[in-house]
Amino acid sequence: MIREGKVCFELNLPEVVSSRMEVFYNPHMRENRDLSLLLLLTLPFEKLKVCDPMGASGVRLLRMLLETQKLEKAVYNDLSAESAQFFRKLLKNHCVDESMVEIHQEDACVFLRRHRDFHYVEVDPFGSPVPFLESALLSLRRHGILAVSATDTSVLSGTYPSTCFRRYGSMPLLSCEFYHEVGIRILIKKVVEEGAKLDYALEPVFSYSYRHYFRVFFKKQAGPKRADRVLAQVGYLLFCDRCLYRAGVKLEGLQNSCPYCGNRLLVAGPLWLGSLWDRELLEAMWQLRGAVELSENSLKLLKRIRQEATLNTLGFYTLSAIGKAFKLGQPPPIQKFLDIFKGVRTHFSGEGFRTAVSHQEFLERVHELLQRA
Amino acid sequence: MIREGKVCFELNLPEVVSSRMEVFYNPHMRENRDLSLLLLLTLPFEKLKVCDPMGASGVRLLRMLLETQKLEKAVYNDLSAESAQFFRKLLKNHCVDESMVEIHQEDACVFLRRHRDFHYVEVDPFGSPVPFLESALLSLRRHGILAVSATDTSVLSGTYPSTCFRRYGSMPLLSCEFYHEVGIRILIKKVVEEGAKLDYALEPVFSYSYRHYFRVFFKKQAGPKRADRVLAQVGYLLFCDRCLYRAGVKLEGLQNSCPYCGNRLLVAGPLWLGSLWDRELLEAMWQLRGAVELSENSLKLLKRIRQEATLNTLGFYTLSAIGKAFKLGQPPPIQKFLDIFKGVRTHFSGEGFRTAVSHQEFLERVHELLQRA
Repeated sequence: MIREGKVCFELNLPEVVSSRMEVFYNPHMRENRDLSLLLLLTLPFEKLKVCDPMGASGVRLLRMLLETQKLEKAVYNDLSAESAQFFRKLLKNHCVDESMVEIHQEDACVFLRRHRDFHYVEVDPFGSPVPFLESALLSLRRHGILAVSATDTSVLSGTYPSTCFRRYGSMPLLSCEFYHEVGIRILIKKVVEEGAKLDYALEPVFSYSYRHYFRVFFKKQAGPKRADRVLAQVGYLLFCDRCLYRAGVKLEGLQNSCPYCGNRLLVAGPLWLGSLWDRELLEAMWQLRGAVELSENSLKLLKRIRQEATLNTLGFYTLSAIGKAFKLGQPPPIQKFLDIFKGVRTHFSGEGFRTAVSHQEFLERVHELLQRA
Repeated sequence: MIREGKVCFELNLPEVVSSRMEVFYNPHMRENRDLSLLLLLTLPFEKLKVCDPMGASGVRLLRMLLETQKLEKAVYNDLSAESAQFFRKLLKNHCVDESMVEIHQEDACVFLRRHRDFHYVEVDPFGSPVPFLESALLSLRRHGILAVSATDTSVLSGTYPSTCFRRYGSMPLLSCEFYHEVGIRILIKKVVEEGAKLDYALEPVFSYSYRHYFRVFFKKQAGPKRADRVLAQVGYLLFCDRCLYRAGVKLEGLQNSCPYCGNRLLVAGPLWLGSLWDRELLEAMWQLRGAVELSENSLKLLKRIRQEATLNTLGFYTLSAIGKAFKLGQPPPIQKFLDIFKGVRTHFSGEGFRTAVSHQEFLERVHELLQRA
């Protein structure tokens, strides 16, 4: 018997979760579902209409039905008849009022384009979310939330740069220490762009990288001016792999050599330069953390992001990147760095921290460290 | 009675054609339909399945049925019941075999996503084709043709740059003399990008600007490598509004000042840097020109493009731009320019020509002209 939140069910899990499972359920996505429930609770609507167009086992929707009191309708879709059957049984076993649920069996994109006005739409496919973005954002109502998961993190982070450019239209940057953050910022850019082309503003309100996937929640607004305001936060990342200089610039600000050390600069993007989190939303999620049965990991993740979001920087530093760039033999412990740079830790990397100091200041403090070593 | 090609019908045309017409037919798009028929004749398939998802009056499909012998099926879709009714009557009046036609009445994008394997799909909406691109290219078979019209030419050409950036993700450039060509290259980039994100290669094979619209035909191929080869031809345009220097570069080749005169360079893009025409296709269309009843304008346009395509350059020059930039009081007639620069005329502008000479050579010949003046 598997239990997740208020849901119990029987399912034979293979050793490796794959898309060939008859009914798809991934136990490693529990944190993903935990946090989506928590976010749902913060939405300023009563009577939510939520949609999971690739519903699979349906555990996510069922948890939303059982663990929040805000759903008016849970709309499930999956091409697989077995999955829909499994979900139906699950609903029955948990005594869910049938009038609260709709079950469809259609191609996800066609389904999304035939329905409108959802408060929340889940895009959690195998691999890249790109084929579903345009259809999904059309199905959302104003102020609704688009929840996107991407499991093609190695593409977004730079292991396959030509695939990243083809699929997302941006160049990643594996050779910086915050390559995962670059990846999530490229994913955000793609969603922003897909919205903007149809005069919608999709703004990221909560983003994270966890295990094998990236996750970003977007709030949708409508109108060209709002879309332009979001688009204005898209640009390029300049990065120096010698002195770790990094800066976000617009197209006209691109330059070739590092203003600090003269090294040839690397470029990534276009990507999202704006904030990864809406701090008010984070605070609301934190306050509500007792309202949902969160796993220990979910809680830890949320806690770290809440601290991290106090410093809204483009990129972070890691101990090993600083050690390598400045030839610090044995870098001091991370707490020392946090003190020196007035830093906060990042959830992206166990040895990473954000700091608001300027690059000039950063270099000076690193050199002080070197002299003391 | 209106006659176009082999089609005759009665319809009250308002003075200004608008989307509020009960049944939409635009007599100014005759050349658009002429050339699509001609292109259809060159396709290496017998028994074509063609689709017009926003079929309107249906005159285009009916002409394809009557004026080519290559159709197996004409698939018509339009949300408007009046339009479908009009098309049905038109078919009857022209004694068309009903088994060759399918008529649907659905949202164009939903319709396109529920059908596959068309040899030819027409995207000819009011305004921008952007909302239809992703759905349309999915419905095409390999080696099929996507025919795209865009009537938002002022957006693409730079009158509303923020709208262009929002809708197409690129910066236009109104201050160069070939701003229309920049616009069509931005349109092509958008289609290439929409294809590439789904691992399709959409390559432009025939492009033109005429009256109030841009028109581009794309051949679809599948697979990441083919998509990458097409994407490799996307980049940026550098332009100097002092000495008329222009160059296509990739992201890493962007620079700020003109290598010839030191002036600050303007940047447009990302946009298509590759060829606007497949010359073999153009030749085939030219050979077949007698097989379709073309208007005089269609023939003139095709003839000029056939000459123009012999010089595959990024951008062209106009007499007035040269006159203004180099203070030629009274520029000599265009034939003189064609001789001096070994140029060919362009269909984009009556006073424009393409030349293959380098910018150095261009400047030298302009200065010779100045000295003789």
